[in-house]
Amino acid sequence: MLDDDMKKYAAEAIGTMVLMLIGPGTAIFAIEAVGAPGIALAFGFALTIMAYTIGNISGCHINPAVTLSFLLAKKIDNKTAGFYMGAQVVGAIVGGLLLYIATEGGDLDATGVFASNGWGDTLGTPFGLGSVIVVEILFTAILTFVVLGTTGEGYPVGFGGLVAGIALAGIHMATIPVDNTSVNPARSIGAALFAGTDHIQQVWAFVVFPLIGGALGWAAHAFLNGNKVPPPS
Amino acid sequence: MLDDDMKKYAAEAIGTMVLMLIGPGTAIFAIEAVGAPGIALAFGFALTIMAYTIGNISGCHINPAVTLSFLLAKKIDNKTAGFYMGAQVVGAIVGGLLLYIATEGGDLDATGVFASNGWGDTLGTPFGLGSVIVVEILFTAILTFVVLGTTGEGYPVGFGGLVAGIALAGIHMATIPVDNTSVNPARSIGAALFAGTDHIQQVWAFVVFPLIGGALGWAAHAFLNGNKVPPPS
Amino acid sequence: MLDDDMKKYAAEAIGTMVLMLIGPGTAIFAIEAVGAPGIALAFGFALTIMAYTIGNISGCHINPAVTLSFLLAKKIDNKTAGFYMGAQVVGAIVGGLLLYIATEGGDLDATGVFASNGWGDTLGTPFGLGSVIVVEILFTAILTFVVLGTTGEGYPVGFGGLVAGIALAGIHMATIPVDNTSVNPARSIGAALFAGTDHIQQVWAFVVFPLIGGALGWAAHAFLNGNKVPPPS
Amino acid sequence: MLDDDMKKYAAEAIGTMVLMLIGPGTAIFAIEAVGAPGIALAFGFALTIMAYTIGNISGCHINPAVTLSFLLAKKIDNKTAGFYMGAQVVGAIVGGLLLYIATEGGDLDATGVFASNGWGDTLGTPFGLGSVIVVEILFTAILTFVVLGTTGEGYPVGFGGLVAGIALAGIHMATIPVDNTSVNPARSIGAALFAGTDHIQQVWAFVVFPLIGGALGWAAHAFLNGNKVPPPS
Repeated sequence: MLDDDMKKYAAEAIGTMVLMLIGPGTAIFAIEAVGAPGIALAFGFALTIMAYTIGNISGCHINPAVTLSFLLAKKIDNKTAGFYMGAQVVGAIVGGLLLYIATEGGDLDATGVFASNGWGDTLGTPFGLGSVIVVEILFTAILTFVVLGTTGEGYPVGFGGLVAGIALAGIHMATIPVDNTSVNPARSIGAALFAGTDHIQQVWAFVVFPLIGGALGWAAHAFLNGNKVPPPS
Repeated sequence: MLDDDMKKYAAEAIGTMVLMLIGPGTAIFAIEAVGAPGIALAFGFALTIMAYTIGNISGCHINPAVTLSFLLAKKIDNKTAGFYMGAQVVGAIVGGLLLYIATEGGDLDATGVFASNGWGDTLGTPFGLGSVIVVEILFTAILTFVVLGTTGEGYPVGFGGLVAGIALAGIHMATIPVDNTSVNPARSIGAALFAGTDHIQQVWAFVVFPLIGGALGWAAHAFLNGNKVPPPS
Repeated sequence: MLDDDMKKYAAEAIGTMVLMLIGPGTAIFAIEAVGAPGIALAFGFALTIMAYTIGNISGCHINPAVTLSFLLAKKIDNKTAGFYMGAQVVGAIVGGLLLYIATEGGDLDATGVFASNGWGDTLGTPFGLGSVIVVEILFTAILTFVVLGTTGEGYPVGFGGLVAGIALAGIHMATIPVDNTSVNPARSIGAALFAGTDHIQQVWAFVVFPLIGGALGWAAHAFLNGNKVPPPS
Repeated sequence: MLDDDMKKYAAEAIGTMVLMLIGPGTAIFAIEAVGAPGIALAFGFALTIMAYTIGNISGCHINPAVTLSFLLAKKIDNKTAGFYMGAQVVGAIVGGLLLYIATEGGDLDATGVFASNGWGDTLGTPFGLGSVIVVEILFTAILTFVVLGTTGEGYPVGFGGLVAGIALAGIHMATIPVDNTSVNPARSIGAALFAGTDHIQQVWAFVVFPLIGGALGWAAHAFLNGNKVPPPS
């Protein structure tokens, strides 16, 4: 029905949509019931289950920062990277929309900010943009350092999907109180669009710094492992 | 002692009973002690342990929505699907009965609703039937999309049992505050019967919408993977 | 230095000691900080790590109820079962003693009951002996049903150690509020000895009913799988 | 660019830095949001993800007590052990510095003690040095007993990385209320330097006793397994 490339893009869109439903979905439906630990685990769970479900199709990046790191590592080509990022953003927005509908237009959102990222008064956190910059760069670098180190020629194998999810859970465990944790521009866009103007105005930071972090993680990986160039998968 | 088909049905009944004892059991005995995060993890733990214990016998569906998705994927035949669903409902009711006994006829049930599903005033949640419909369809679809993507010719292999449990834990982490999370008609029936008339009157929704979700998850799986037809296991 | 049999008994003693330090240790040091969910996870973590560390030596039963189920399944012989149970009780008591020392003779025990099992006023729970009987039999049966289904000729392989720990965590998640969860006579004895007369008077129940449950779990396993008799390992 | 030995040291430094960012980082950013259970899990998550990411380069010790146990087991030589320990301390200090920067010079540290270890009034715990000695020796011994039992010729294989992280999580679950849990001299130094004079004065204990514990864990491993001498990796 679909050719293989289209299946990959569809898988990235669906996977990112599922990440939104379970990650920000847990915050939006259940922050009072499960708190930050539950949200952190939920993000990790979502990445792990998608890794084993769509990993053999698209590699399960479901995150533009991860896709960037794969591009820098020459595991995917420019065109694939572009379509992946586009599919991820579309999937995240669809996921956000479904959450918007399930909460009766956001009325039943328990976070008050539709689980969007931000800093200062917008989010109600003592952390400012400076902390956000350090945190998003460092923790996205950890994510891509781990993912590049635990994947084969383009997709997770064996323990890789489990480890990727554990990384994402650990990252959220540490940084939710700073800025609700992005490390994923698609996730940030998908939430901000339904959170109102203030959050949309801050979303640029959660595109720029995770991408910088993604590149830094690739650099650490290449520094230790070399940057072997397999044929694009 | 039993022929192989009967062993499969018995395994499904026992597995669903264990799911009830650990999942709703955690809510009923321990909601005050462990909260929604503990309940969410317990459901996932129960599915994972049964997957590795009875997966080689019956495939460990222990959920009519999963069985429906396997039927649509032509991994099992009509007769097997029917007996599986029946065995699951029987196992869930036995599990509910054992919890009823262990709580002195429900007197020591800490949830007040015997961990049953519902909406609105019946459950004491702000979410109404509309939200329940969206949530049960979407999150059951995630479950069957994952299970179909991580199983071999009819039963979980390798990481599959772990991933199935992680999916169920993530689903509960997000949606317990909405409707106590069904995504499993057998689990809903097994709890409602001991929760009283109000909950029995709402249980139809937790049969219908998880089954629709199960079919949707199959559709997503078939869309990305094709619907290869192996010989029935 | 030691012959192979002695190494097995030493491994069982050390493993049960570690189970005490991490399981009841978490309750005794940290119940206020981590609550029942943390304690439940800690028990599971302890079993998993010992399974992979000593599983290749002794099989890592570290629980007389598990050893009984292996005896009934003819995976070990009478003499081994007896020495295993003895070593487990000794290891549990040593673990309890180390916790007693680390808490300055129990003065810094945060549970007030040295994490021992019990019912009614002795433990400060609304559950009575009737509930304890049902719960200990059923949940120990789940444990041995899982362990027998996920081990090879006497020791955990592959995912088995992970699954055993997940089972123990799920069991505790559900039943800590009932009776502090035994499902393991050695663990109960190791705690009760340092908890005072009232708890020692109730410890018989946490020897008898877990052993009955262990046998029931074997029966369920044999019912579904047959009771193949490998040569004793 | 780097020779293989230098890559190993760099991997140890980076890995220990990541352990600081996610372990103490969770405490410093998020103790109010995730509590001790979240911190315990975060430490375990950090070790697991680094085990799979740098395990094939350096073995992922990221802890001088682990390195000591590998030296005693003759899995590494004196020179490697020395450089590993140095790299771990450097990595931990860099990690601490990054957390210091991200919290605006510690002003936004939620623990008040920069997640450092200690006892008595310095840490605000009822536990004194006596309890700390017992706990650090015993629980570090558990860690190295597990790691030595689940690694191949110098690095984690298969489930080893997962099991190591589960061990570290379980250790923290039990002992955070005692002394904030060290079991790792590098982690203790990296936190104490930014926590002030009182904590620096107590840091010796978190160098000495974890190292003694590391040796004890090796002794238990050698007692049960013999101390086979493979060629240094």
